Amino acid sequence: MVRLNEIRDGEEAVVPPPATDAGLVFIGRCHTPWTDRLTCPRQGRLDGPTCRIEIFDPWLPALDGIAQFERLEVLYWLHQSRRDLVRQSPRNDGSARGTFSLRTPVRPNPIGTHIVSLVRVEGANLFVRGLDCLDGTPLIDLKPDRTLFTPIAPRQAGDDQIGDGA
Amino acid sequence: MVRLNEIRDGEEAVVPPPATDAGLVFIGRCHTPWTDRLTCPRQGRLDGPTCRIEIFDPWLPALDGIAQFERLEVLYWLHQSRRDLVRQSPRNDGSARGTFSLRTPVRPNPIGTHIVSLVRVEGANLFVRGLDCLDGTPLIDLKPDRTLFTPIAPRQAGDDQIGDGA
Repeated sequence: MVRLNEIRDGEEAVVPPPATDAGLVFIGRCHTPWTDRLTCPRQGRLDGPTCRIEIFDPWLPALDGIAQFERLEVLYWLHQSRRDLVRQSPRNDGSARGTFSLRTPVRPNPIGTHIVSLVRVEGANLFVRGLDCLDGTPLIDLKPDRTLFTPIAPRQAGDDQIGDGA
Repeated sequence: MVRLNEIRDGEEAVVPPPATDAGLVFIGRCHTPWTDRLTCPRQGRLDGPTCRIEIFDPWLPALDGIAQFERLEVLYWLHQSRRDLVRQSPRNDGSARGTFSLRTPVRPNPIGTHIVSLVRVEGANLFVRGLDCLDGTPLIDLKPDRTLFTPIAPRQAGDDQIGDGA
């Protein structure tokens, strides 16, 4: 069963510092078939349903060139997730482990990162497969999949720095 | 040359909405050899220098179980980046393309995502290779590399949903 608001046996909550170190702007919204956390996939699949990512003004020009990438990295804001658990019990069986060793939506900064395949771009809409978030989830970033991207900018010294030698 | 604050030929800036849709808490800090944007790597490499990620209170218990993963996904806040460019010219040659087709630090929400190899964990410190950020960069999340992680929680209906059939 998906977590709604409960704290389970073995889990540990903290009093988090205020989330005021930096601010996000929602740049769009994910439209998916899942309106209920009880049916939403745990992990998206590239053969899953086609979903739509809508980009808000004034960010449309930032899509220029995106269609050349077969896969994109999508960052979204898991707006229904609590943020105060440091140990969690995904199976709800009394066993628990640290939040940073899980890819659960419940985390200090509830940001999901996901790889999707890009089906097509139509104006302010991207059609993709592989999403696993609730309908209406706010979008915070889109990037080319790192395995498909080579920096265009000139190399810098750090790019050739290896190991821990003096 | 790395961007400092200039807008280059062919680039396009917008007046962004206020970044107040959600708030982040910095959960730690990255310690790297790079103190200058002119030498910082464009892309980290897994044979690069060992760097240290420091985790702040009260998040230490969230590290429990992380040592079992050979690679981690790191999300950090690119605190020196401007956020208002929708078209950018990485080569500074007059050609430009959309921000979402680049992995540049300059983006509406300047979040870097990166895969690092985990060398060891010592208390509140993780030693990793593959980082490419400036010394002092704020940390916002750590997750197991998605290719090494299988959800522990029970499957849900959406996990078995494929294609766009009725």
